[in-house]
Amino acid sequence: MFYPKDIKNLIDEFSKFPGIGPKSAQRFVFYLLRKSPEDIEKLTLSLKGIKNIHICSVCGNFSDQNICSICQDKNRDHSVVAVIAEPQDLMAIEKTGEYQGTYHVLGGLIDMIENKSPEQIKIKELLIRLKNSSIKELIFALNATIEGESTILYITNLIKEDKILSSKIKLTRIARGLPLGGELEYADEITLTEALKGRRGI
Amino acid sequence: MFYPKDIKNLIDEFSKFPGIGPKSAQRFVFYLLRKSPEDIEKLTLSLKGIKNIHICSVCGNFSDQNICSICQDKNRDHSVVAVIAEPQDLMAIEKTGEYQGTYHVLGGLIDMIENKSPEQIKIKELLIRLKNSSIKELIFALNATIEGESTILYITNLIKEDKILSSKIKLTRIARGLPLGGELEYADEITLTEALKGRRGI
Repeated sequence: MFYPKDIKNLIDEFSKFPGIGPKSAQRFVFYLLRKSPEDIEKLTLSLKGIKNIHICSVCGNFSDQNICSICQDKNRDHSVVAVIAEPQDLMAIEKTGEYQGTYHVLGGLIDMIENKSPEQIKIKELLIRLKNSSIKELIFALNATIEGESTILYITNLIKEDKILSSKIKLTRIARGLPLGGELEYADEITLTEALKGRRGI
Repeated sequence: MFYPKDIKNLIDEFSKFPGIGPKSAQRFVFYLLRKSPEDIEKLTLSLKGIKNIHICSVCGNFSDQNICSICQDKNRDHSVVAVIAEPQDLMAIEKTGEYQGTYHVLGGLIDMIENKSPEQIKIKELLIRLKNSSIKELIFALNATIEGESTILYITNLIKEDKILSSKIKLTRIARGLPLGGELEYADEITLTEALKGRRGI
């Protein structure tokens, strides 16, 4: 090609990033070529830094320690656990500032089309955690998709089959309804049905 | 924030990339967190590689040598020079496989709104190059924008003021017309006027 090898290599690397094609990768490289060697060094160091990131041995969140800061936090309610698919979802919930419980990161959702089986996500770890702790409530905070629903169904069935677990743990799920700015006219039937069922006193 | 420092640092770095907001930057970092240390090492090395990239001392293109491979190529026509704004434009022209001349990369366009003055782009270097070589034709291949037009006007005026230069150098510009798939009905008046003026025998 017409690019020097060093440029081409970096374009190839950026092209592998999610949602990034060769055009955007090229833009990134030309952006970096205008930067000082110090800026490149800073980016390189930041990249190296993520090699220090572990998976929290309790909840599966990313952490720079063996146990993440949320699981270590004594002020949080460790009897309530939100079951989420990815660490990004944890960030979304934390941003609300309203949730005081802890988390369990599944690392994905059951997805038959993408060949993601229950064994590939952290369901076994969740059951072990439930058995070895005094968790009272499990809040399913998963995507409102077929994959999310399948995962909820699969896990709740497992728990309901276990008499000890099902007697001590309350299973809940986040509400479905109109999002902020959502227009009733354009809402689908399922959302609207769930929104009606989930109506609250004013 | 809720992110470990190492993750946050890298999100901040990616957020500076062109067209990338915090959400996309976060996606990149989570993508990289799933990669092996070897993959991260490969990306780090590619990043370091671009520190070896120079600006070609003849045309201003990026190169891993002092003079780029196009300027060194004896099979190319060094009497024809395409004036372009950025190295990306060079790549676009090279991809056609039709151009056998060389280039002059201005490193931008004159842009009064963005405070980009003629002194900030490589116009002086172009004039020196024209004086010290046997260039016969200058093809302006700039964006069809006000900035592109201003830059063409500025440079051609400088050349026309110089009797020796203007007598030996032919000044041309790439055609304006309907792009592939362009519909006549929706073409603007200027494009259509230029397309009519530039009509060719069949």
